[in-house]
Amino acid sequence: MGTKAIRTALKVDLNKPAREQKGLHNRWHPGVPSCGTIANNEVVKIECLDWTGGQIQNNDSADDVRDVDLTQIHYLSGPFDIEAAEPGDVLLVEIQDIQPFEDQPWGFTGVFARENGGGFLDEIYPKAAKAIWDFEGIFCSSRHIPGVRFAGLIHPGILGCAPSAEILAEWNKREGELIAANTTGRDVAKPPEPTNAHGGAADEEITAKIGREGARTIPGRPEHGGNCDIKNLSRGSKVYLPVHVAGAKFSVGDLHFSQGDGEISFCGAIEMAGIITLKFTIIKNGMAKMAMKSPIFQPGPVEPQFGPGRYLTFEGFSVDENGKQHYLDATVAYRQTCLRVIEYLRRYGYDDYQIYLLLSCAPVQGHIAGLVDIPNACTTLGVPMDIFDFDIRPEVEAVKRFMGSCAFASS
Amino acid sequence: MGTKAIRTALKVDLNKPAREQKGLHNRWHPGVPSCGTIANNEVVKIECLDWTGGQIQNNDSADDVRDVDLTQIHYLSGPFDIEAAEPGDVLLVEIQDIQPFEDQPWGFTGVFARENGGGFLDEIYPKAAKAIWDFEGIFCSSRHIPGVRFAGLIHPGILGCAPSAEILAEWNKREGELIAANTTGRDVAKPPEPTNAHGGAADEEITAKIGREGARTIPGRPEHGGNCDIKNLSRGSKVYLPVHVAGAKFSVGDLHFSQGDGEISFCGAIEMAGIITLKFTIIKNGMAKMAMKSPIFQPGPVEPQFGPGRYLTFEGFSVDENGKQHYLDATVAYRQTCLRVIEYLRRYGYDDYQIYLLLSCAPVQGHIAGLVDIPNACTTLGVPMDIFDFDIRPEVEAVKRFMGSCAFASS
Amino acid sequence: MGTKAIRTALKVDLNKPAREQKGLHNRWHPGVPSCGTIANNEVVKIECLDWTGGQIQNNDSADDVRDVDLTQIHYLSGPFDIEAAEPGDVLLVEIQDIQPFEDQPWGFTGVFARENGGGFLDEIYPKAAKAIWDFEGIFCSSRHIPGVRFAGLIHPGILGCAPSAEILAEWNKREGELIAANTTGRDVAKPPEPTNAHGGAADEEITAKIGREGARTIPGRPEHGGNCDIKNLSRGSKVYLPVHVAGAKFSVGDLHFSQGDGEISFCGAIEMAGIITLKFTIIKNGMAKMAMKSPIFQPGPVEPQFGPGRYLTFEGFSVDENGKQHYLDATVAYRQTCLRVIEYLRRYGYDDYQIYLLLSCAPVQGHIAGLVDIPNACTTLGVPMDIFDFDIRPEVEAVKRFMGSCAFASS
Amino acid sequence: MGTKAIRTALKVDLNKPAREQKGLHNRWHPGVPSCGTIANNEVVKIECLDWTGGQIQNNDSADDVRDVDLTQIHYLSGPFDIEAAEPGDVLLVEIQDIQPFEDQPWGFTGVFARENGGGFLDEIYPKAAKAIWDFEGIFCSSRHIPGVRFAGLIHPGILGCAPSAEILAEWNKREGELIAANTTGRDVAKPPEPTNAHGGAADEEITAKIGREGARTIPGRPEHGGNCDIKNLSRGSKVYLPVHVAGAKFSVGDLHFSQGDGEISFCGAIEMAGIITLKFTIIKNGMAKMAMKSPIFQPGPVEPQFGPGRYLTFEGFSVDENGKQHYLDATVAYRQTCLRVIEYLRRYGYDDYQIYLLLSCAPVQGHIAGLVDIPNACTTLGVPMDIFDFDIRPEVEAVKRFMGSCAFASS
Repeated sequence: MGTKAIRTALKVDLNKPAREQKGLHNRWHPGVPSCGTIANNEVVKIECLDWTGGQIQNNDSADDVRDVDLTQIHYLSGPFDIEAAEPGDVLLVEIQDIQPFEDQPWGFTGVFARENGGGFLDEIYPKAAKAIWDFEGIFCSSRHIPGVRFAGLIHPGILGCAPSAEILAEWNKREGELIAANTTGRDVAKPPEPTNAHGGAADEEITAKIGREGARTIPGRPEHGGNCDIKNLSRGSKVYLPVHVAGAKFSVGDLHFSQGDGEISFCGAIEMAGIITLKFTIIKNGMAKMAMKSPIFQPGPVEPQFGPGRYLTFEGFSVDENGKQHYLDATVAYRQTCLRVIEYLRRYGYDDYQIYLLLSCAPVQGHIAGLVDIPNACTTLGVPMDIFDFDIRPEVEAVKRFMGSCAFASS
Repeated sequence: MGTKAIRTALKVDLNKPAREQKGLHNRWHPGVPSCGTIANNEVVKIECLDWTGGQIQNNDSADDVRDVDLTQIHYLSGPFDIEAAEPGDVLLVEIQDIQPFEDQPWGFTGVFARENGGGFLDEIYPKAAKAIWDFEGIFCSSRHIPGVRFAGLIHPGILGCAPSAEILAEWNKREGELIAANTTGRDVAKPPEPTNAHGGAADEEITAKIGREGARTIPGRPEHGGNCDIKNLSRGSKVYLPVHVAGAKFSVGDLHFSQGDGEISFCGAIEMAGIITLKFTIIKNGMAKMAMKSPIFQPGPVEPQFGPGRYLTFEGFSVDENGKQHYLDATVAYRQTCLRVIEYLRRYGYDDYQIYLLLSCAPVQGHIAGLVDIPNACTTLGVPMDIFDFDIRPEVEAVKRFMGSCAFASS
Repeated sequence: MGTKAIRTALKVDLNKPAREQKGLHNRWHPGVPSCGTIANNEVVKIECLDWTGGQIQNNDSADDVRDVDLTQIHYLSGPFDIEAAEPGDVLLVEIQDIQPFEDQPWGFTGVFARENGGGFLDEIYPKAAKAIWDFEGIFCSSRHIPGVRFAGLIHPGILGCAPSAEILAEWNKREGELIAANTTGRDVAKPPEPTNAHGGAADEEITAKIGREGARTIPGRPEHGGNCDIKNLSRGSKVYLPVHVAGAKFSVGDLHFSQGDGEISFCGAIEMAGIITLKFTIIKNGMAKMAMKSPIFQPGPVEPQFGPGRYLTFEGFSVDENGKQHYLDATVAYRQTCLRVIEYLRRYGYDDYQIYLLLSCAPVQGHIAGLVDIPNACTTLGVPMDIFDFDIRPEVEAVKRFMGSCAFASS
Repeated sequence: MGTKAIRTALKVDLNKPAREQKGLHNRWHPGVPSCGTIANNEVVKIECLDWTGGQIQNNDSADDVRDVDLTQIHYLSGPFDIEAAEPGDVLLVEIQDIQPFEDQPWGFTGVFARENGGGFLDEIYPKAAKAIWDFEGIFCSSRHIPGVRFAGLIHPGILGCAPSAEILAEWNKREGELIAANTTGRDVAKPPEPTNAHGGAADEEITAKIGREGARTIPGRPEHGGNCDIKNLSRGSKVYLPVHVAGAKFSVGDLHFSQGDGEISFCGAIEMAGIITLKFTIIKNGMAKMAMKSPIFQPGPVEPQFGPGRYLTFEGFSVDENGKQHYLDATVAYRQTCLRVIEYLRRYGYDDYQIYLLLSCAPVQGHIAGLVDIPNACTTLGVPMDIFDFDIRPEVEAVKRFMGSCAFASS
């Protein structure tokens, strides 16, 4: 190495439907055929689509977000065989770099319509909305959310190794039980779905099987990671992944230029297509050695740093907006914390949807503060003040400004 | 100022029962008489008991933790009238410093017995346990958890202004409804409790009223903060508190030498008695100006810093230890994340209870990673590797060492 | 912007001699013709050669370093006219990104031979030496200095606006006086030198004038910055540059993947060719407004962070290696500090030249600690311990390992 | 430990002349009798005077600074015998904490008059001046320099072990040679001086010998450290000190609440009396093991952190204010860098002396940027913007405000 460019293990075609590309797939299943082999200790580049597979346009309407086809998302690049990886090993993946495509220096953040996707605050904000972000090197800014600009904490939303047949069966069983018991009137999990299931290079029969059994890519899962959306899994991070099948069958996708803790609006990161540079190292028998049931990682040393004193931090508790008391529910508490930020930032002239989008994609810190003092969970959300080009400290009088608008769907 | 020492607004007596000291109280109620007045913009020192009011001893038995009287905890220092504060104002409290008492340079972390207090993992770890921490300047170490040593991120577990009568009524109503609906077989909230209610300088009649109506200090609450246990609310932080009664009636207590996000074992911080130095500034009509419903804070610039790449970070999901799938439940996810750390650190020779204690009090970072990918919430827990005197990186072979034991209760 | 790629304002040809490319030049002179125009507030990419203009090869011999032609270095990209910039303005340059060329993912650090270039420690280390660094995303490692790997703090060594004729005359005068007074037996400054002077698109006559008068690019100079070699001027930084001629005539070059404070071996950074993304904004009459005589900058938020406690820091004083006492000489003190590090790291099996190269290019922190306690200046040099894959803490026994060798010149 | 307070190894009396206290001394000499013994691995508190031994008052006149008796400064606490330390060992000193005295929460920064002490910029700023700093917990502010407030990076200016007779002789020889060769018209070093030499508990004869031979405490020296004035040697730091005499004979003093890199005004830190908590550990034969000629340290994890992007950074070069070119002189470059900051901050209404004082004591970062590009050394000085209560970014218009005055001497 050194004298020549790093090998690109997979190229994608941004102008061809994802479902026609053999190096992509959108289900977790051990039967998806490998699309290539990577040596132990090798460094490669892997190209990835954005998580909607290119459904969202760089324009000022959110119609595309409103009408997104959620059966056609999360096309992952892979799976790759890592030479000599065996079940029980741990695959150490080092994230050496992530970059957008040079000729596509932009991304998007969306709020899905409540009836098609929804999000963390969809009861309050049911409309589809969108912000386009322009990338200028490591920075991004949006014509749809003026007054902010920040360096991306760039990361993959999804990475993991394929489940074994046994693990896949376990996933389908436990998620099926949740679905069976559901009385909430909203989706609580995504069962296998043959429609638009894409098994990469799989033939028709295998594809059908993948469609019937394959796990959806929406949730992360403890046994392999998957869609974890961890904002700190950025450049320089090392991830330790359990291996469940021969060759590991590693996949990656859903690149984010930036994301806030919780990715609250669901399509909440700054979603982008791009290129990830990874190094793969096998740790033999690592799962037993590390007593590993779920992935572990070590973040890199290059996170954007705002100084500990530069986060304006909001508190929230497990009492919901109707005044109802919940029992140690960190999810309710975090929802309230988000609402506190919206109320605060609204004073500067932002529309609530703009803030909802911003909280989803800016590098906000969402902490679990207290989880034991019954009945209230307490969570905090730290907003880095330096991403604003005006002063948001509480002691400075808030001045309402004209802040334009994010993109909405036509009515 | 400058030429003379900072005024001490309240002294406590470590050798006298807390319930006999008029500057202490253990209920939130507007009727607790003020124990002193502080001027706008004044800096004062306030002495505080530890949160058990001195029930825990520096020894090698956890009998005291097992038998702790939970009706006699959280004695707060105050309330103080802040001159000219009125309902609707915001009280800006700057935490200038926190120190243990010079002649009591130690603190404790406890695991309560499941039948008396419990904690976040009490179904798995039902026994009482204890670790004593010795303070050496800004550092602490424990004979009960060898191999670790770290700088404290020192902070108050509790601070806030008194509720108005209306707010207090609201608290009792909503928490009462939760209790009324409880079918879980465990306590879900703490109703008012006359036993050992201490109203400071209140006369008998008022004390009885406080006992009947006063809110327990265990949970933090959105309207005023209270027991938030926010580990980053340390030296140099500014907190903005809503004022609900004339004079604000500010109280503070439950000092922590250090705590991890979540304070998972309930008595999980390094609890200590000590002295807090605070500056008070009134922001007139601040609640409306800031659209404030819950406290906001800005952390200080002096947090212990380990570098972004020095946190070994564990992932957890809302699938519980029985394999049951929960719906976007960050609390379940965080519990799993804690278990992943315990499994990992156990390999070095630690007993599970030692790790449970350590996670509760060391400056671990608990983040909400993803909350929108149904059905799995994903949380992360970052353990600063530099607090260990051996190398805990995954690529280094784990060697089991003799790690002694934390204190347990006699049987 | 946003929908299309960022404009590349200058392309360079890595396979064509630098002196034949019209967008490059190697002298500071107001007469160098502009190679293009950039609008106020525009973002552009600019390609740059490495500072030797491609003289150094990716191999295991330092013959190329020993024989480097120092009249053919520092080919700068530019100058660019910034629309509407006038003398007295300040040019705000935001460094949005810097990347190596995709097909040339490597760089080099050199020690020049004492008789051809020299360096900070050339009396002790007179031989030519070289280390090749391979880039893996944001990281670099070298087969010539095993055991270290780190994230680059990538930056341009040189940027600035052209001097006016008056300023150029002042430079030549004051540096000429130093040369005239020189009795040290070594070069103390570089006078104008017609040999190989390259004036970009200048015709023969102008080129001759540039050769006679043009300032060499080696030193930085107070009036415009130039070759400042500031390691923290990395991605995300904003630099404020004085404008001395109409259009500003901005030039940039000498990209560094990483550098230590002082760039001690002279060719000490990890030198590379690459692409820099810059945004230009004019601040009218900025020099008077900011009372600016020399450039100012604000570093970006994304520096690699090792935590304040992860720097092993060495002290040095202005007593030289012969025991001679110097008067408050920070340069002597820093030289001693470097020697202290070399003595320390040598114990692990490194050759002195390897360490000399490493100190020049790794992100070490060189601070001026004390400059007033006669007669000793005290400087410190902090080495980030996390760049080593073994433990260099003083309390851990040093074990000598086989560390190979850097590249040397043949004899 | 743990159950009782940390032992105080030395108490000082703030109301008694320093020269009458047997636990203090003001010369480095192996003959100063030990004032106490500390065990290996012991933690102790040591009280210290401020570096003028109490000559400076908390008032608004700088007469005391102008008239300071420089033969009566730097009274060090000690020396202490560390049990079993022998020449060739290394003494590991951990700085656990530093605090001002509780009833003396203030310190001072001075500019000495050029004819009595002087400082880094005394040719430009020859008058005596003073700022008093009030401590509020970890913060300080000054009525003499309004508009700034910051957390102290508290540290000892001086610590070290006693020199052996041989080392002392070497010091006197090399500094004597510098003095002998001096033609500058200003003091270049401080020779031994019997006047007011204080040898602690030494008898008359030994005291006389100490006066004749003892090294002055002003400069730090490579063999043992001493007066290094390293601002980052703060709480949590570990210092590794060479041991030259039996028992080590460790001394400490000159506590600083805060200091900027360079301590430019000489009496430039925020000088204070106070209490330092230290832990001592002997590393047998450490000097050979670590190849140690000068002290090494590892800073603590709790430095005030402003974020890498929050330092407004100024550049300076080795061309002096008369336009004279100097050869790679970092000292000249740093002086110019300081002047650039003064010119910039003057625009807000500050008097030059206020800024000179501020640069000396605020946690500014002074880096050696480039030291090899003949003839210009380049240094940088980073000013943390967050210490100001107004916005000093270059893009914000500077508004002149009334900034009062620092204290000056009467005329």
